[in-house]
Amino acid sequence: MAKHNDRSDPVAEQRPLAELLRLPAGPVDLSTIATDSTVGFPGRGKDDVGTVGAALVPELEDLQERLFANGRATPETAPRVLLVLQGMDTSGKGGVIKHAIGMVDPQGVDITSFKSPTKTELAHPFLWRIERALPAPGMVGIFDRSHYEDVLIVRVHDLVPEAVWSARYAEINAWEEALVAGGTTVVKCFLHVSHDKQKERLLERLDDPTKYWKYNPGDVEERQHWPAYTEAYEAALEQCSTQHAPWFVVPADRKWYRNWAVAQLLVEHLRGLDLAWPAADFDVSTEQARVAAS
Amino acid sequence: MAKHNDRSDPVAEQRPLAELLRLPAGPVDLSTIATDSTVGFPGRGKDDVGTVGAALVPELEDLQERLFANGRATPETAPRVLLVLQGMDTSGKGGVIKHAIGMVDPQGVDITSFKSPTKTELAHPFLWRIERALPAPGMVGIFDRSHYEDVLIVRVHDLVPEAVWSARYAEINAWEEALVAGGTTVVKCFLHVSHDKQKERLLERLDDPTKYWKYNPGDVEERQHWPAYTEAYEAALEQCSTQHAPWFVVPADRKWYRNWAVAQLLVEHLRGLDLAWPAADFDVSTEQARVAAS
Repeated sequence: MAKHNDRSDPVAEQRPLAELLRLPAGPVDLSTIATDSTVGFPGRGKDDVGTVGAALVPELEDLQERLFANGRATPETAPRVLLVLQGMDTSGKGGVIKHAIGMVDPQGVDITSFKSPTKTELAHPFLWRIERALPAPGMVGIFDRSHYEDVLIVRVHDLVPEAVWSARYAEINAWEEALVAGGTTVVKCFLHVSHDKQKERLLERLDDPTKYWKYNPGDVEERQHWPAYTEAYEAALEQCSTQHAPWFVVPADRKWYRNWAVAQLLVEHLRGLDLAWPAADFDVSTEQARVAAS
Repeated sequence: MAKHNDRSDPVAEQRPLAELLRLPAGPVDLSTIATDSTVGFPGRGKDDVGTVGAALVPELEDLQERLFANGRATPETAPRVLLVLQGMDTSGKGGVIKHAIGMVDPQGVDITSFKSPTKTELAHPFLWRIERALPAPGMVGIFDRSHYEDVLIVRVHDLVPEAVWSARYAEINAWEEALVAGGTTVVKCFLHVSHDKQKERLLERLDDPTKYWKYNPGDVEERQHWPAYTEAYEAALEQCSTQHAPWFVVPADRKWYRNWAVAQLLVEHLRGLDLAWPAADFDVSTEQARVAAS
């Protein structure tokens, strides 16, 4: 079956990837969105990803340094970027951080991996721990899982009553809207992996003693809940893909494409900030003379 | 004048860099340690650093992933690594993080930049904020400045009475000893830059509008205190280079060498941990069957 992000359109590559991967408005049926697409990739395939990826680095470095510089020079007004990574087990949140975020100066990046909430965190509203992890001015924050877990695992496993989780979609939308209004660009990526590919990746972990540590017998139990997770993801994507903070669905069956795509989305969003280098708040020639005399 | 880390010794390159850069015991006179040395670099010079650096990456990735894997599998016993970066302004702490630490999976790295202490931090003993920033099991912590500022800027600017700062060397040694005994490998790097090179780098910042944000007129005032900072560094290096946590003096006039040297020191220390991949705590064939059936 042809899926709407198949590479059937030869002009697709001319358009920003953010347009191509942005979740269309309306009901979400993940089975209609290909997991193995390479839409928008400006090359023939995997063999080109080294070159294509390397070509991104200078621009990504330049843009991220501008962001960071603004954070230092004018923290009151400098923007922030928040990249949210969600996806089923094995969809590759870790791989994206290693390969895409690994392109960026680590000083400008602030990664938070959200685990099961602690007792202290559970004693607060669900957005409390999220709020505390937000990036500082000039920083690129990365959320490896996020507040969306509070409408995903929480919904699938009935960790709170339905009345509670069902109210959270609106809460999340309002909270993200305020975040964006405050100067944070929010880039939400759903890494979309297929049920078969998940099995393949779990088996790979069991085939390789250097990967045993990534495997947990509980992963199989979670895998039994695939339909419930799919339903929960569809609800979250549908209800929380807003004008101010849309969801991007990143096909994640091909690791090389997934990693490139997230880096490309980051570049496009940084470009959109249109950041100038901060002006000097001192007299340059005076300072040159002072340094020269020192 | 020949300095003790000049590349006069043709077998120097066979020895671990940690041996070559480790501060010798005894009185410290920084003027006798070259800032432009490239001791231990296994190549002819700058033109080779791309190749030499790239050759480090696979081993660094492997070692860091082993560390991270142990942190996940056995957090109670997994080691931690703490890299402490100190040096005069423009010595390149930021450059090291970008280029050397940038080689490592960002998920396994936890960077803390210590600024002027806040009111809350000042209301606590000086090691309080340091303790809170220590890396978790399996992580590589990076301190961009550190507790050493409490015997450097604090000493130079008389921010506390001499009786207070002079007691801190022993406090630091005892604290670091406990840290190491608890399973943290501490790698302390002093980035050793010359007075002339600092001037050159400050002027570069003033010559390039994309670098204005890195310049602060206060840098010139700090530069006037060069002799006092040198004295404070000599005291800190001399008194706090211990068996459990020695200081490494990294010549920092050549950026390419400095960045390579810190990456190489990190590799050597990670190697020294001799980390195995965590064993499976499940029955592999049982799990293979469970996944296959799922």
